Amino acid sequence: MPVVSKRGEEMPQSPIRRLVPFAEAAKKKGTHVYHLNIGQPDIKTPEVAMEAIRNVHMKTVEYSHSAGIESYRRKLADSYAKHDIHVDYTDLMITTGGSEAVMFAFLSCMNIGDEVIIPEPFYANYSAFAYSTGVTVVPIPSTIETDFALPSIEEFEKRITSKTKGILICNPNNPTGYLYSSEEMEQLRQLVKKYDLFLLSDEVYREFCYDGKEHISAMHLKDIEQNVIMIDSVSKRYSECGVRIGSLVTKNKGVIDIAMRYAQARLSPPGIGQIAAEASLDTPQSYFDEVYEEYIARRNCLVEGLNNIPGVYSPMPKGAFYTVAKLPVDDTDKFCEWILRDFEYEGQTVMMAPGTGFYCTKGMGSNEVRIAYVLKVEDLKKALVTLEKALEAYPGRVFDKSLVSESKI
Amino acid sequence: MPVVSKRGEEMPQSPIRRLVPFAEAAKKKGTHVYHLNIGQPDIKTPEVAMEAIRNVHMKTVEYSHSAGIESYRRKLADSYAKHDIHVDYTDLMITTGGSEAVMFAFLSCMNIGDEVIIPEPFYANYSAFAYSTGVTVVPIPSTIETDFALPSIEEFEKRITSKTKGILICNPNNPTGYLYSSEEMEQLRQLVKKYDLFLLSDEVYREFCYDGKEHISAMHLKDIEQNVIMIDSVSKRYSECGVRIGSLVTKNKGVIDIAMRYAQARLSPPGIGQIAAEASLDTPQSYFDEVYEEYIARRNCLVEGLNNIPGVYSPMPKGAFYTVAKLPVDDTDKFCEWILRDFEYEGQTVMMAPGTGFYCTKGMGSNEVRIAYVLKVEDLKKALVTLEKALEAYPGRVFDKSLVSESKI
Repeated sequence: MPVVSKRGEEMPQSPIRRLVPFAEAAKKKGTHVYHLNIGQPDIKTPEVAMEAIRNVHMKTVEYSHSAGIESYRRKLADSYAKHDIHVDYTDLMITTGGSEAVMFAFLSCMNIGDEVIIPEPFYANYSAFAYSTGVTVVPIPSTIETDFALPSIEEFEKRITSKTKGILICNPNNPTGYLYSSEEMEQLRQLVKKYDLFLLSDEVYREFCYDGKEHISAMHLKDIEQNVIMIDSVSKRYSECGVRIGSLVTKNKGVIDIAMRYAQARLSPPGIGQIAAEASLDTPQSYFDEVYEEYIARRNCLVEGLNNIPGVYSPMPKGAFYTVAKLPVDDTDKFCEWILRDFEYEGQTVMMAPGTGFYCTKGMGSNEVRIAYVLKVEDLKKALVTLEKALEAYPGRVFDKSLVSESKI
Repeated sequence: MPVVSKRGEEMPQSPIRRLVPFAEAAKKKGTHVYHLNIGQPDIKTPEVAMEAIRNVHMKTVEYSHSAGIESYRRKLADSYAKHDIHVDYTDLMITTGGSEAVMFAFLSCMNIGDEVIIPEPFYANYSAFAYSTGVTVVPIPSTIETDFALPSIEEFEKRITSKTKGILICNPNNPTGYLYSSEEMEQLRQLVKKYDLFLLSDEVYREFCYDGKEHISAMHLKDIEQNVIMIDSVSKRYSECGVRIGSLVTKNKGVIDIAMRYAQARLSPPGIGQIAAEASLDTPQSYFDEVYEEYIARRNCLVEGLNNIPGVYSPMPKGAFYTVAKLPVDDTDKFCEWILRDFEYEGQTVMMAPGTGFYCTKGMGSNEVRIAYVLKVEDLKKALVTLEKALEAYPGRVFDKSLVSESKI
């Protein structure tokens, strides 16, 4: 039998994947599992998108342009103006999800062995995309002690080598929900300019900014227009993850030209998905207002609830729909398995993503979990009770007094 | 300004891309361009697929399973039984077009620097996928003199090194339309078994086999079940290229496991496309009968027409909807540019794909073109007249007497 590739065997895997069989077994036993582990919102896809799908009346579903349907690209470029991002439709290309945009950005900016600095914790699949493209991730820790603020510029500079080609940020952040301030963005701007690096900015959660905080896009930063590549996606914005439509946006024509070569090889992004995404641009403001209210309610319920559990601490996230919480346990990988395998409270249990999957640095995140607030408030409340009961019952409980005072202020 | 990646700059580009500006300029002048350069059929997508799209009534377009929607996978597995291919739904995964299936196969079977032998001429994007994944293509020439039959096993053996991990075939073939005989498939089987190689078999044109010839799938070959990976796609079968749905099929669980890691990183294949593809499995036989008749008429018109032009030779393809023809010119790259840029006949011209783009071996294909018979017979007839007139007028005409006698038998 021929052997599979070594690179395939060493490919980083989803941190949640290992837990899936335990969740499936729990469900088979009749236990209800609250899925707080994934970024799949239960929010309705806008009606304009669904209508556009139901109105598809073409004779032949042909390949689109490799960079995406021109009318969609034009309308998307126009729509960014609302966010004070001013681009021409030739400054962007439509991709198969934000995932492909990250892949194209790595391939276009970095050679095999080149380095990209990413503040951790970070979206686990960045590791997979970097690994697939032979790019080395250089993590720079941000910590729950500072509520995941941007690490200092000195820390970035310590990590810059001759192989450093770029910095990748996710803003608002998955998994932490952190939203970079204008001061932090200015620091990044100066750093990128000083070392002439690419700044890859994943802004797929742009619309999810809370408490009156403003989103500062990397595309707003002056004097580094040729350095910035924005990664975008319709998945979360319109709760249409399944259409698999994203975009890569940059004023750097060299990057667009190279990305197009990769785009042409795979022919075109999904056709019907593009139609849905284009129509989604006409989603009424009332939809976003409702979604916003819903997420605020969920966030407040979750984060207040977490901080009311003895020994648990979660910062109050200012964006996206995740938070990273510190739990009073020996090891969240063990705890997340245990709660699915050995625990239930009133026929219910909770699935969370262990923190270690979001860190590159060994040992970090082992008492943290990522929780997505993608469920209704009433479900979140039940999940919180279940979590509290589980923490009381868990044999590996570790009680950290410092956390209690911190979280109860 | 930061510099783009070297690998990006060296990425092989579509052989047709260079000609696009000339075609656009011709159209701007008012010349009608017959597009014989691309595999985008004008055939209608089956009504069952369009209806399924128009009947999408989900609340939220969610991510699907990374391996594809289970109901589709089960139905697709069942459908292969009609072709005497017996697989379980866990033996296959749904991919974003056949393109992604090729990428996943390369990544799962081959490390950077490993070699894959491919009979040339071959689908130009194989080079791009190999290049993207660091795999080295080792071409093995098949020639128009033998109507593109499989090269001898001795020729394959000459190319096998310690780095050879697989052989990639496309059957029926793009660009030649060649359909491998049972004897040829048996030769491949023995070779693959002897050297324990992977056999990657791109069978996206399976339904397009003519003159009563039977398609022998790599999945039919005995005793090499663990070696075979079938690449498939709905694009051509149902004329729905734009939905971007393909599949990777193999009995080798190790390959499926590794491919799943790459699949999970990109989350899921296009959702609405999968719905269309699943519905397409219910396409009535009458659809295929009509399409078959149409392609037979087109092929006969095109190939007979080509062979009636002095100095032109085309084998009679037994499958797919392409042929590679030899033209009496100095250089088809120059000719294909000239016919768009400097020629028109009654306000019309023809776009073809120069042969060199389908060969890895320098110098091969320089008097060949790939012609796709994706247009109606009446259009093909006009295109043929235009081509004949162009060949008469072309300053770089080279008259090869051997071809005349050959082609006029």
